[in-house]
Amino acid sequence: MKRLIVIIMATTLSTTLSAQQLSAEESDPKTTKYMQGYPPPADKRINARDGSFFEFPALRYSVCHMREFMPTVGVERLNRTPTHCFEYCLDPNIDNLTFTPTGTTDTLTFAESLPLNYTDGILILHRGKIIYERYFGELTSERVHAVMSVTKSLTGTLASVLAVEGVIDTAQTVAYYIPELAESGFGDATVRQVMDMTTAIKYSEDYTDPEAEVWKFSAAGNAMIEHPEGTPQGYYDYLPQIVKDGEHGNVFGYRTVNSDVLGWIIARASGKTVAELMQEVFWGQMGMELDGYYQVDALGIPFAGGGFNAGLRDLARFGEMIRLGGTWRGVQIIPEEAVKDITEGGSAEPFARSTYAKGLPGWSYRDMWWKSNNKDGAFMARGVHGQAIYIDPAAEMVLIRLASSDKASNTLLDPMSLPAYQAVADYLKGKREI
Amino acid sequence: MKRLIVIIMATTLSTTLSAQQLSAEESDPKTTKYMQGYPPPADKRINARDGSFFEFPALRYSVCHMREFMPTVGVERLNRTPTHCFEYCLDPNIDNLTFTPTGTTDTLTFAESLPLNYTDGILILHRGKIIYERYFGELTSERVHAVMSVTKSLTGTLASVLAVEGVIDTAQTVAYYIPELAESGFGDATVRQVMDMTTAIKYSEDYTDPEAEVWKFSAAGNAMIEHPEGTPQGYYDYLPQIVKDGEHGNVFGYRTVNSDVLGWIIARASGKTVAELMQEVFWGQMGMELDGYYQVDALGIPFAGGGFNAGLRDLARFGEMIRLGGTWRGVQIIPEEAVKDITEGGSAEPFARSTYAKGLPGWSYRDMWWKSNNKDGAFMARGVHGQAIYIDPAAEMVLIRLASSDKASNTLLDPMSLPAYQAVADYLKGKREI
Repeated sequence: MKRLIVIIMATTLSTTLSAQQLSAEESDPKTTKYMQGYPPPADKRINARDGSFFEFPALRYSVCHMREFMPTVGVERLNRTPTHCFEYCLDPNIDNLTFTPTGTTDTLTFAESLPLNYTDGILILHRGKIIYERYFGELTSERVHAVMSVTKSLTGTLASVLAVEGVIDTAQTVAYYIPELAESGFGDATVRQVMDMTTAIKYSEDYTDPEAEVWKFSAAGNAMIEHPEGTPQGYYDYLPQIVKDGEHGNVFGYRTVNSDVLGWIIARASGKTVAELMQEVFWGQMGMELDGYYQVDALGIPFAGGGFNAGLRDLARFGEMIRLGGTWRGVQIIPEEAVKDITEGGSAEPFARSTYAKGLPGWSYRDMWWKSNNKDGAFMARGVHGQAIYIDPAAEMVLIRLASSDKASNTLLDPMSLPAYQAVADYLKGKREI
Repeated sequence: MKRLIVIIMATTLSTTLSAQQLSAEESDPKTTKYMQGYPPPADKRINARDGSFFEFPALRYSVCHMREFMPTVGVERLNRTPTHCFEYCLDPNIDNLTFTPTGTTDTLTFAESLPLNYTDGILILHRGKIIYERYFGELTSERVHAVMSVTKSLTGTLASVLAVEGVIDTAQTVAYYIPELAESGFGDATVRQVMDMTTAIKYSEDYTDPEAEVWKFSAAGNAMIEHPEGTPQGYYDYLPQIVKDGEHGNVFGYRTVNSDVLGWIIARASGKTVAELMQEVFWGQMGMELDGYYQVDALGIPFAGGGFNAGLRDLARFGEMIRLGGTWRGVQIIPEEAVKDITEGGSAEPFARSTYAKGLPGWSYRDMWWKSNNKDGAFMARGVHGQAIYIDPAAEMVLIRLASSDKASNTLLDPMSLPAYQAVADYLKGKREI
């Protein structure tokens, strides 16, 4: 198995497995013991102020404890509907399904792949029933996990709903909704261009470049950092500084700031933050099991680009509702057109022109969802370090993966995850109904 | 009404009602609009770093939004038991019950008193049924509220349980459980002396004195402040610095640090934080309605002296369980002896020798609960700005009050609250069973 990883890393992922690389077991919080003890010893203390809580392997602990490191706002399940109970129809064949990681000729089983990509939780629904559910590392069925950029797809879904309801006009400019952004690079972009991330702005999200704008944005939104007078106190203080770079609408450019501009538009147009809407529309009326929450900045603004945390099963409920065109337990939770815009709307051209086309050929991006445009019509929400809501309509499958991989970029994680998801989908498509 | 307040303030409370003093309505967060808007305007921004979130009237907003200002850890209701539903038997007479505020000859109705002491929520159980329930200001039945020092009584209850279970030996010294405190003023105090706050330490909790130790303790535990290397990073880094001042065991001295020493002892002896125990023992198995949470310091340690937040009805469930000797819905949640130690244990002498005896003559303090020793055997958990769990066994009454009064000290609030509670209790004792 180790040989295989080395091959994948060395040939496909252009990196090597160093001797220091910790396995899933070695990096398990039960082993590393970050933040354990009363108080934790000095070498086991991590925090959000200096970013140490987000470094692997500390990250494997933090993903289930984000609220303990920063201010948050609840997305509560309330008690307005009874807790929904899933039907279980566990399928013992899933573990043994095999697949070939992209760029290799080797074979992995589904079960073997889970520790290799530091899976914390994975749940597969087939026709709404749980056929597979596993918890590793710090995650349990009674804990939430950071979903990172999966949050963007939730923001995009809310925007799609508000667009269908006429609360947001996607043809309007950003400046129309947010006058503070009129002079910024976003000012003359349409809401639609923001939703599909085709805005042309000078903004690098290259985490390896210390001068990249993403660091300034992250710092502005980090409530744990003291912001001197005259510097941005939160996300919305920083966004107006972003300048234009080219023409909007032509090329897909994956930049988190689009999601926060969209979150801002949602708040101004609806009078509610994404956190309030997530509670009102989904968590408060779907019989969720655990309260979710959003990381907030120093101004109390939820991080629409990456700050949501939720339980594995609740994310499955959300995904299944999307698969069913916005219905849940026979009730239309959101308009079907809002989901259709995600699955059928948009164009693949801006994506094809982007740097992402190489790793994800044929894919496109709509309403902050990633669309494979494959034969199954699969589409997904994706977050760094391996978070995914993967919906395969042809296989009637919803797969949720929560993880704390040593690698952030999904480009590095896709070779082992996408073929695995497809293997399960292909198996389910051939599964005989009993 | 205004005249009456002036009299109370001027004669009993040694302060005057200034023209700037805001009424409950004027200080309502719906009026003041702190942290409203996307983003909130500069003059409506408050935070935990500089303490502005805790100043009246901003406090009236913050008490229901503590997690949005600082890191917290959940005390979750989980889904292991169905949500408990209260029986309602609302009594329209409560509003019109009258009482005489201590030190005055005037008469107030119960309903009139609620805005005067900035009540956010009040709930009265009689024989376990809700006979009165009101929400004001920022509180709703779907939001939690900071309970401030009511937290201490929860910590004391957990300690009483662990003592009965033999996990903690209350005759042992603090140093036995916490070697880090051996050289401190707490070192040779017994756990019992900590539980009853009869430790003799040099520690001022006079909030009007900027040199008071309480400020250093608060700063150490404030996760929003950057702590330079070499300074305390959290509560447990600060506590060892406290020195002895006199002999332990003689005089009651109300000092928050005792509760955090006790929380530390609980964690070391049980292997669980007060937050974990609160979830395991109470919130996770009593059919609570809302998840609670604790404020944590930068080391992830819950603030056992004042950091809990919970819903009004859930606090009523907790109070009723205490009134019933540790049983809830026919199940013995905690040993009856643990509750009996609160209601029957201890001595009134250390309290009689303290400065508190003047304002609360005849009272005593046991297991971090305040005991009136009155004819009803009433006892209570108390928190600054008006928080209370008031249990009157003779009246079979549990009264919960959550508030955000302009005044912090309960000494200033007791004249209007304690006679009101007694008026309800007296009424209930005379109420004919239907």
